[in-house]
Amino acid sequence: MSSRTASLRSLSRATATTTATSPGIRLFSATARRAAPSAHRALVFREHGALNDALSAHTFRALSPPGPGRVNVRVRLAPVNPSDVNVVEGVYPNKPSPETLLPPDSGGTQDFSVAGGEPVQSVDGGEGTGEVYVPGNEGVAEVTAVGEGVSGLEVGDWVVFAKTQPGTWASARQVGARDVIRVDKDAGEVTAAMLSVNPPTALCLLREFVPLKEGDWIVQNGANSAVGQLVIQIAAQRGIRTLNFVRSREEQANNALVKHLGALGATHTFTYDALADRTLTAHIKQLTHTAPPRLLLNCVSGPQTTGLLRLLGQDAQLVSYGAMSKQPLALPAGAQIFRGLVARGFWMSAWYAAHARKEREALLEEVVRLKLEEPRHTVFTVQAGWSDEEAGRRVREALGVQGRSPGGEKVLLRVEDPVV
Amino acid sequence: MSSRTASLRSLSRATATTTATSPGIRLFSATARRAAPSAHRALVFREHGALNDALSAHTFRALSPPGPGRVNVRVRLAPVNPSDVNVVEGVYPNKPSPETLLPPDSGGTQDFSVAGGEPVQSVDGGEGTGEVYVPGNEGVAEVTAVGEGVSGLEVGDWVVFAKTQPGTWASARQVGARDVIRVDKDAGEVTAAMLSVNPPTALCLLREFVPLKEGDWIVQNGANSAVGQLVIQIAAQRGIRTLNFVRSREEQANNALVKHLGALGATHTFTYDALADRTLTAHIKQLTHTAPPRLLLNCVSGPQTTGLLRLLGQDAQLVSYGAMSKQPLALPAGAQIFRGLVARGFWMSAWYAAHARKEREALLEEVVRLKLEEPRHTVFTVQAGWSDEEAGRRVREALGVQGRSPGGEKVLLRVEDPVV
Repeated sequence: MSSRTASLRSLSRATATTTATSPGIRLFSATARRAAPSAHRALVFREHGALNDALSAHTFRALSPPGPGRVNVRVRLAPVNPSDVNVVEGVYPNKPSPETLLPPDSGGTQDFSVAGGEPVQSVDGGEGTGEVYVPGNEGVAEVTAVGEGVSGLEVGDWVVFAKTQPGTWASARQVGARDVIRVDKDAGEVTAAMLSVNPPTALCLLREFVPLKEGDWIVQNGANSAVGQLVIQIAAQRGIRTLNFVRSREEQANNALVKHLGALGATHTFTYDALADRTLTAHIKQLTHTAPPRLLLNCVSGPQTTGLLRLLGQDAQLVSYGAMSKQPLALPAGAQIFRGLVARGFWMSAWYAAHARKEREALLEEVVRLKLEEPRHTVFTVQAGWSDEEAGRRVREALGVQGRSPGGEKVLLRVEDPVV
Repeated sequence: MSSRTASLRSLSRATATTTATSPGIRLFSATARRAAPSAHRALVFREHGALNDALSAHTFRALSPPGPGRVNVRVRLAPVNPSDVNVVEGVYPNKPSPETLLPPDSGGTQDFSVAGGEPVQSVDGGEGTGEVYVPGNEGVAEVTAVGEGVSGLEVGDWVVFAKTQPGTWASARQVGARDVIRVDKDAGEVTAAMLSVNPPTALCLLREFVPLKEGDWIVQNGANSAVGQLVIQIAAQRGIRTLNFVRSREEQANNALVKHLGALGATHTFTYDALADRTLTAHIKQLTHTAPPRLLLNCVSGPQTTGLLRLLGQDAQLVSYGAMSKQPLALPAGAQIFRGLVARGFWMSAWYAAHARKEREALLEEVVRLKLEEPRHTVFTVQAGWSDEEAGRRVREALGVQGRSPGGEKVLLRVEDPVV
C-alpha cells in the first residue's frame, strides 16, 4: 500500500471526526456508512490531452445512499471506445459533468457539487483541489442501492447506461434511475458492457429511417468501424444487401479486411478510391437498379461521403452518426431539392432520452436476441491493491494513445474498489 | 409578313397535300383542323447560352387534338423567372423536353417525337432541323380542347402548370391534364401567371416541415428573393417572426432594402457580414431564447448558410429550395448528430407530383386568399404580326442577360399566335 493510500486513510479518519462538528453541512447518514463502507475509485482527467497523458486514478469516498429517483451501482466492466478517447482529448462535443476535488482541510463534509443539474460524488483525497472528469460512456453495472420512488429496478439487477457520459471508468457510481436500463444477465458481462451504444445504434440506423425489406440495398462508409460491422451483421440476418466502403490500405491488409467483412455478411466492400473510377459507379448502378439504395449510413463525412451520394436513389436518407474524417459534409443542393435527399443525424443518447423505459428495455432485448459477434477484446483490471499512483501509471501504459490493447483489440476496464 | 412566314405557309400547304398520301403515319384529324386552324409560336433555344443570345422564336404547326388524358391550352401570360434564365444558361438541373425540328422535306406528317415519355409538338419550319427547347416553367393558360377521360377540366378554364418545365414561353401547349391545376379567374391574370411556383413554395416552406405558431421565430437567407419576400408576408400574416438575411450592399441600398422588407412584415433584417460579429449572434440568441428558431429556409447555400446554423435551436429543420451562391452547403456533423438538425430540400414540382388534384387546387386557393403583394412587373407581348425573326430579335433585346425589364422589373411574356 503506497503512502498516498495511507494519507487517504488518514483523511478518512479526519472526516470521521469532523462530520459531527460542522453544523449545517449534510453528513453521511448512518445507513450510508453501513451500506457502503468502502471507498471507490475512478479514472479521471483534469485537462484534455492524450489518453496516456491526461488520465490518472483517484480514490473517492464511498457513495452516499441514493436520494429519491436515484440508484447506486457497482460498475462491473466498461469499454474504452474511440468516442471516450475523443472525450479525453477534448474533441468530442460532450464532456462528463465535472466533479469537485475538495481541499484536504475541508474534512469529510458530504459536499455535493452540482453539475449538469445533478449532484455528483465529491472527491476525497488525490492531488489537491479543482475539478476532474470521469470518462466512460458505456458499461455494465450492478445495482447496489435503490432510492425512494424508483420502480422497475432492484438491488442485484444488471443495468447499462442510457444517458451520455455517465463516467463508467469507475468502480461505483450514483445515477438517476431513469438514466439506466435493466438488462438480462444471460447477455453475459462482455456483451452487456458493450450493449448500450453500438449495437442499438446499428439496429436503429437500420430501422428508424427507411423501411427496408429483404433484397434492398444500403450504402455505408466506415464499414469496418464497430457500428459498421454490426450493421453488416444485422443487415445480413435480414437479407438486406450492403455496399460497404472503407479506406484504401496496403493490398494485403485490404484483402484481409474485405474477407473479414465478407465473413460477417457484407455483400460488397469497396475503397473510396475505387469509386473515383466511374466504371465502378456504373457497375453499382447496374447491380442496384431494381432497388436503388435509399439509405446511406455515414460515420466519416468529408468529400468521400459526398461522392457516395451518387449511388443513392430518389428520396434517400443520409444518416450521420459520426465524422471520423473530422471534415464537414458538403451537400449539393440539387440532391436535396430535386432528388429528395434528407440528411440527418442519429445519436443513441437522444433516442434513449426520447423513449420510455419499456421501449428502451425492448430495444436492448432485441439486440441481445441478435446474438451479434462479440468484438475481440482484452480486459484490463485496475486492481484493488494498487495505489492511485500505480493504478494511473498502469492504465496509461495499458491504454496508450489509442485506447487499444498492444494487439489492437478493444480494451474493457474493470475498476475495482480500492483497498483503503 | 416576312418571307419566313410565307415559307411557313407554303409548308402548311405542303402538309395538307402530303397527309393523305403517307400511309402509316398519324395524321391531323379533321376535328383538329377545324378546332385549331392557326399555327402557334414559341420562344426556343437550341444550345445553352445567355438569354439574349440563345433565344429565338419559332412558328409551330397548330396543335393536334388532345389524346386521352391530355388537354390543349392557350398560354395567356408567363413570367420570366431566374430559374428560367438558368435553364437557358444550362445551369439548372432540369431541362424542357426536346422538340424535334423536322426537315422541310418531311412534309406535314404529324410526327410525334417522344421526350420524357410524353409526345411533344413537332415543329414546322424554322431554321433547319434538330432539337430545340421551349423554356418557361410557369404561367396561366386557358383550356382550348379536352381529351378523352379528362375530368375536372373544361374548355375555358384557367389553369397553371404543376409539372416542371412545361414550356410556357409559347402561345399554345398540349399537356397532360394531370400536369395542370385549375385556378379561379378571380385571381387575375398577373397573379395567376405567377401563382404556381413561388407563392405555394413560400406557403409550403412555412407549413410542411415545422409546426409554427404565433410568436415563433424562423430564419431565412436570400430574404429579398421572390420567395423570401412571400415568406415574410405570409409569416407576418400569421404572427410568425422572421430573422431575414441578405447580402451586404452599399449603405443606401441596404437601408432601402431593410425598409422594403420591413414594410412587407420582416421582423429583423441583417446582412451575412453582420453575423461575423459575435455580439449579433448573442443579441439574436437573447431575442429568441424563449422560442429558438427551428426552421431555416435556405435559397443561398455556401459558407454563409452554415454560419446561420448557430442561430437554430434543438431539432431544427434546414430546408433548401435554392442555391444562389452556387456553392454546396457544408453541414457540421455535430449539428446533425447532437442537435438533431435535419437538412432537406423542397421542390414545388415534387410536391405537386405527390399530391392529388384536390389538394393542389386547395393549395392554390389558399394562396389566392392570402392576397399577397403582386411583384412589380411589365408585360412584353410577342405580337402576332411579327415574323419569327423580328419576334426573336425583340425578345432578346427586351430580356437582356438577366431576363428583367430595363427598370429591373419582372417581365411577363404574352406570346400571341402568329398570323400565318
